Amino acid sequence: MTQEQLLLNERPNGMPDDNTFKFVETNVGEPEANQVLLKTLYVSVDPYMRGRMSDTKSYVAPFEVGKPLDGGIVAEVIESKSNQLQQGDIVRSSLPFQEYHVLDADDVSKVNTNGLSPSAALSILGMPGLTAYFGMMHIGEPKPGETVVISGAAGAVGQVAGQLAKQAGARAVGIVGSEEKAAYITQQLGYDEAVQYKKGDVAQQLQNACPDGIDVYYENVGGEIGDAILPLLNTFARVPVCGAISSYNLKDGEQDIGLRVQPFLVKSRVKMQGLLVGDFSDHFDEAYAFLAKAVANGDLTYEETIQEGFHSIPDAFLGLFSGENIGKQLVKVADPS
Amino acid sequence: MTQEQLLLNERPNGMPDDNTFKFVETNVGEPEANQVLLKTLYVSVDPYMRGRMSDTKSYVAPFEVGKPLDGGIVAEVIESKSNQLQQGDIVRSSLPFQEYHVLDADDVSKVNTNGLSPSAALSILGMPGLTAYFGMMHIGEPKPGETVVISGAAGAVGQVAGQLAKQAGARAVGIVGSEEKAAYITQQLGYDEAVQYKKGDVAQQLQNACPDGIDVYYENVGGEIGDAILPLLNTFARVPVCGAISSYNLKDGEQDIGLRVQPFLVKSRVKMQGLLVGDFSDHFDEAYAFLAKAVANGDLTYEETIQEGFHSIPDAFLGLFSGENIGKQLVKVADPS
Repeated sequence: MTQEQLLLNERPNGMPDDNTFKFVETNVGEPEANQVLLKTLYVSVDPYMRGRMSDTKSYVAPFEVGKPLDGGIVAEVIESKSNQLQQGDIVRSSLPFQEYHVLDADDVSKVNTNGLSPSAALSILGMPGLTAYFGMMHIGEPKPGETVVISGAAGAVGQVAGQLAKQAGARAVGIVGSEEKAAYITQQLGYDEAVQYKKGDVAQQLQNACPDGIDVYYENVGGEIGDAILPLLNTFARVPVCGAISSYNLKDGEQDIGLRVQPFLVKSRVKMQGLLVGDFSDHFDEAYAFLAKAVANGDLTYEETIQEGFHSIPDAFLGLFSGENIGKQLVKVADPS
Repeated sequence: MTQEQLLLNERPNGMPDDNTFKFVETNVGEPEANQVLLKTLYVSVDPYMRGRMSDTKSYVAPFEVGKPLDGGIVAEVIESKSNQLQQGDIVRSSLPFQEYHVLDADDVSKVNTNGLSPSAALSILGMPGLTAYFGMMHIGEPKPGETVVISGAAGAVGQVAGQLAKQAGARAVGIVGSEEKAAYITQQLGYDEAVQYKKGDVAQQLQNACPDGIDVYYENVGGEIGDAILPLLNTFARVPVCGAISSYNLKDGEQDIGLRVQPFLVKSRVKMQGLLVGDFSDHFDEAYAFLAKAVANGDLTYEETIQEGFHSIPDAFLGLFSGENIGKQLVKVADPS
């Protein structure tokens, strides 16, 4: 049996394009003793993958040219030669982007999405949900009455972060790129206010939306939006830095130039801290339990933007950088059997 | 009796100059019951005072035009109408810059400099010593074998910060502006290496001095030096931000433009945190005890650069921005009686 696989064809310089990706056909292989055959159901495309397309040292090894991309995948066990997993089980792992996988059963973990779509294991009950939780609750630590601003507020992480701030009793202001997203975060997620960065002076809009300054800024985008936040930070403000998507497609040798933060950090004794979800692995159980319960109770809602078909992965990935998605961007590769 | 007093004559736009300051003559006054008459011995000039010369919201109220500057002063009680203080006692307080003070005894606190010069109460056993201690020990938290870089390494705070890093078992690299300061920090303070930022490519020099990257960066200066640090920060690096002296004399409307930190903070999950010594007042006793003991044991050494005479305050202050001082810059106004 053959399958489609998605390779890194060449390293992008600046924004990735069609030459960045290459689809090839490979053999699936057969599971041996203690192995399983998995069918990919959903593939997660995430902004951090752009970093791995470049040949620079980072927290995960770069993708290799001519080798498959990999990332978060939810798959179904369609054949099992292991006692640990049964046909029909849903598993999640970081796997090469291809339609099938032959793996040791030890290398994947079964997920229980509590009656939600299996895709939830890549969104609200997956990495983005956890990232929002740790950034907001362990670094941001919003308090009742504080003002919390979230950039990328309608995105995979932002949609959760804003609701967590509200649950903590804070005022939540989201920065988004469209009228539709503004409506989503204020009407569906309970954000108090939306700032549309494409609609003129962001600094002025933020000042209007945050008359008492900013106590927590959940940073997803960086760039000029991050700059506009700095003068509004209150004493002892916290800035979890989850991402800086505006900088991910700089060309080789380009630098991300803007406001230096040091004068603001000193003046207001701000804490700014970068985070990666894996750093909090000791607390995963706490976070999964919290998120699952909040979703079950209806205290937490979320969206997924799902493109169909393995071949749509590059398009779905590129859409992250133009803000096509509301909520988590996923690619649906196959239906469960 | 009359005395000299130093006023803010006009708010500077950019670097302060002679028009910023004005000396006037005022009456000293007489102490009443429960009051003391103090003679100023030493005046502390500090970079943060530049912020107070501008009319912008910060952690301390701006100086008022036509009113005296104020700051850290060590003084001698020359007449006491209080049981709390005796003639000859040495006190420290934040006071207007003038030669004498008539004050309620409750408003000043006696200092014991353990046989050191009274000036120590404004340097190693004062605000700069404490600032180094809290920034390094409470935020930087250097561990054995780590690499710690300190900018302004020969300054009032930097000279202490570097020694604390060494005592913690870390490798200490100092950034300084002259050959003389490089010799001071490596030969007197025990820094492992000095980077002279006026001697060519700082980024390259830092890379050579920090082959294993940077785990703690004690930030005193900001600007291009702060920029050069960012790419070298290791995973989980800590950056206590004590000052950003390179930005203090920007003209009205000028912004401090350079490398945005967000991409580096995410990539290496760095914590950057602004600090002000007063935020740690609950721990002052711990810090004073630590510093006094370390000095007494000979584990901590320090320098003071002392200009003579009340009229030299403006010059001593301006010298901070051209790096004239080694160690703490003070002005000696009078000898003890």
